Amino acid sequence: MSCDIGLYGLAVMGQNFALNMASKGFKVCVGNRSPSKVELTVNRAKEEGSLPLVGSSGPEDFVKQLSKPRKIVILVMAGKPVDETIANLSQYLDAGDVIVDGGNEWFHNTLRRAKELEPKGIHFVGMGISGGEEGARNGPSLMPGGPKAAYDLIEPIISKCAAQVNDGPCTGYLGPVGSGNYVKMIHNGVEYGDMQLIAEVYDVMKTVLKLSNDEMAKIFEEWNSTELESYLIEITSKILAKKDDVTDTGYVVDYVLDKTGMKGTGRWTIQEAAERSIAAPTMAASLDTRYISARKDERVKASAILKGPEMTSAEIPVHKGQLLDDLKSALYAAKVCSYAQGLGIIRAASDDMKWNVDLSECARLWKGGCIIRAALLQKIQDALARDKNLPNLILDPVVAGELNDRTAAWRRVVVTAVGYGVATPALAASLNYFDAYRRERLPANLTQSQRDFFGGHTYERTDREGVFHCLWDDSHKSIGDIKERTAGEV
Amino acid sequence: MSCDIGLYGLAVMGQNFALNMASKGFKVCVGNRSPSKVELTVNRAKEEGSLPLVGSSGPEDFVKQLSKPRKIVILVMAGKPVDETIANLSQYLDAGDVIVDGGNEWFHNTLRRAKELEPKGIHFVGMGISGGEEGARNGPSLMPGGPKAAYDLIEPIISKCAAQVNDGPCTGYLGPVGSGNYVKMIHNGVEYGDMQLIAEVYDVMKTVLKLSNDEMAKIFEEWNSTELESYLIEITSKILAKKDDVTDTGYVVDYVLDKTGMKGTGRWTIQEAAERSIAAPTMAASLDTRYISARKDERVKASAILKGPEMTSAEIPVHKGQLLDDLKSALYAAKVCSYAQGLGIIRAASDDMKWNVDLSECARLWKGGCIIRAALLQKIQDALARDKNLPNLILDPVVAGELNDRTAAWRRVVVTAVGYGVATPALAASLNYFDAYRRERLPANLTQSQRDFFGGHTYERTDREGVFHCLWDDSHKSIGDIKERTAGEV
Repeated sequence: MSCDIGLYGLAVMGQNFALNMASKGFKVCVGNRSPSKVELTVNRAKEEGSLPLVGSSGPEDFVKQLSKPRKIVILVMAGKPVDETIANLSQYLDAGDVIVDGGNEWFHNTLRRAKELEPKGIHFVGMGISGGEEGARNGPSLMPGGPKAAYDLIEPIISKCAAQVNDGPCTGYLGPVGSGNYVKMIHNGVEYGDMQLIAEVYDVMKTVLKLSNDEMAKIFEEWNSTELESYLIEITSKILAKKDDVTDTGYVVDYVLDKTGMKGTGRWTIQEAAERSIAAPTMAASLDTRYISARKDERVKASAILKGPEMTSAEIPVHKGQLLDDLKSALYAAKVCSYAQGLGIIRAASDDMKWNVDLSECARLWKGGCIIRAALLQKIQDALARDKNLPNLILDPVVAGELNDRTAAWRRVVVTAVGYGVATPALAASLNYFDAYRRERLPANLTQSQRDFFGGHTYERTDREGVFHCLWDDSHKSIGDIKERTAGEV
Repeated sequence: MSCDIGLYGLAVMGQNFALNMASKGFKVCVGNRSPSKVELTVNRAKEEGSLPLVGSSGPEDFVKQLSKPRKIVILVMAGKPVDETIANLSQYLDAGDVIVDGGNEWFHNTLRRAKELEPKGIHFVGMGISGGEEGARNGPSLMPGGPKAAYDLIEPIISKCAAQVNDGPCTGYLGPVGSGNYVKMIHNGVEYGDMQLIAEVYDVMKTVLKLSNDEMAKIFEEWNSTELESYLIEITSKILAKKDDVTDTGYVVDYVLDKTGMKGTGRWTIQEAAERSIAAPTMAASLDTRYISARKDERVKASAILKGPEMTSAEIPVHKGQLLDDLKSALYAAKVCSYAQGLGIIRAASDDMKWNVDLSECARLWKGGCIIRAALLQKIQDALARDKNLPNLILDPVVAGELNDRTAAWRRVVVTAVGYGVATPALAASLNYFDAYRRERLPANLTQSQRDFFGGHTYERTDREGVFHCLWDDSHKSIGDIKERTAGEV
């Protein structure tokens, strides 16, 4: 048969996404370097009700089975395997065909590949996919960036396969090639932030309030029917309630080693934030905590010599109901600031790269299928639709009002955590972000004065136009033209 | 005359460093693209007492005047100008000659240039220089990395020109090419952190305690004869006391616009920290604040709609003497954590690159001449000399003791600032770093459980060896081999 689309790369994500497309009625041809996965996927398609899915015996056979213009999704490891797969397939492709890379790829690699394929007339699309294996099978969030003509060719298929929410499928045209990978990268950075904020709230509940796992599971379950409703809150509740079946005693989560692994996208998010001069302290705190978590041996040593406050609730009284309400408010407010940071990075990159990404559309795509899906995203979508040029999410009047309503609670949580010595780097970083951003006058005047003192970096004044340099220290003698300095200081 | 050393690039740093070398008795030849600077520098050398310094009419003439093996320091803008200068000069150089780049260069560029010069047998050294124009003239901190043989050739000159402290000159062999630039980059990152911490302390003094500039100047002056003694504390005092001579009313610092500029090294530090998986929240907070400071228009808008606590000292009582003592302790403790982060990045890079950098030596080089010179560096040098394999500065017993003595004060400062709505991102980030690092058990078990839930990322257990995967949600069906996952989640 002549297939509507090909999927190459049959690890878990690839298998599931192929079955997803086939279950929507599209004829799918699948390929993989090792043939056993092809057979496995063909068998799964049969088991799941004779889905229209066929295998292939190699790249040439794979390509031959596709109707023109050919549409191919590749789902292999990011980096070199993507280059190899493109090389293997593109030799059999024609001008007008489309390759969609569904991996978590560094956007500069995608830009390079698009350029390399240009002379052959092959369209290249970088499409972030979020949702894990379940999302891939039943409806992920799909974040494509590439030539509009190529998007139009794949749109009928991906729109049907994406998660469906109130206002349509969780996919849409994000912008030129690279933008899709970028938006997925930020999705992952935001996901890191969400996870860290939840971990800190859990830590305060456990360490300060001494709640049991069952109590905490119940609270997260309750929160999941409030403004905090989200996939990550939902699974947190399930995780906390899960009994251990290795020992048949206690809960799994208490046996899980406190080392968090990571892949590249979170790291890239932080590096890109720096590249674009965007403050991203909440996401950075989540990365930092993963690094520190990995140094378990050092922490064990440190715990013996670095002293905490060893507070008891007798010394800093806490009221359980109040603190739980406060934690809920703090989590929400900190999360909003984290999203503001993430969206700010996308905006800055979009401006730099002339991608013209619609931030409201990003929020819409994230409402279903992906790991960060949350009720909050509807509010973000609305805020960014109200004002396309909003410089920062937290300047939206509705969002600002929600934050203002929660700052007192947020401050109480951070104060309590500091008092008890419970690290809450992301909750505190979000609050400091809020407190810095809302200040008309920051102490940056002192910092700039220091730069002018030791490096002659000049400064502007509040009372008149122009660029100024002060001879701060009479023992200093200024020489030369300050514009020509190459002094090495910051 | 046959010159001991050449200096090419006569902006402010170059002129001053050339005069420094000449004033130590070395015969210096100077060169520059535009000849006017050559004349200016030659005249300055005459005025300063017939220093042994001669000009040159172009690259060939410049090189001809140097004795062999030739030693050349270039001080031009980082990036392309360095490549151009090397190309212009190297055509006249021979095997065994040495080029030293004294600029703030990205270390990968230095590695590339060293490789490009290798076939010609020209040695290339990347040497960070800190101290601004005054340091360059009277004794900077010099951070060279390059072939040991090349270092040995320049050592007699740079040892005499560097700042001199209790145990010798503020220079020394740091390691292979690239390491010098790297150590200078981290120096600058640490400098960013120091500046931000001082700005936060100033903000609390001004906003919470409503101190006058004269009062604050006096306090920083007093602090400069305590354990906080440092160049940046010293100039902060001078800055705060400086009367404005533009208006003849008030103080300069109050007229300085609260926007802080920056160059590349701070940004690189944060990107490198992420690259090496090292938590660097204090330095990151200083960068973030610079980004936010630059968005003055947004902050003005934000100040109208985002609400602070508008606390008065009646609501949160503060005792002036106590808070000042606490600020002093907090500044010191937060600074120590920032240095721990910076040194941690150097260690990680040194391990990755096999540079074998001696961290104790880094601290020694920073004791004089440079912007971060401080009494604290002697303690750091000693701590890192006591145990060359110390995984983190704050695990040293003496340093740990100093932190333990200050944590109560540090907590009070952060709590007060949060209560008053004064952003203290660096003070708080350092404290959270401390509180996370000293925890034997972090809530990372929950984060790792979430990763296993949605992405099948597996986990280790506390009670037995092995890698585990849990079917957290009975509605989930695990498929395939978890080792082969390419799922896109973090």
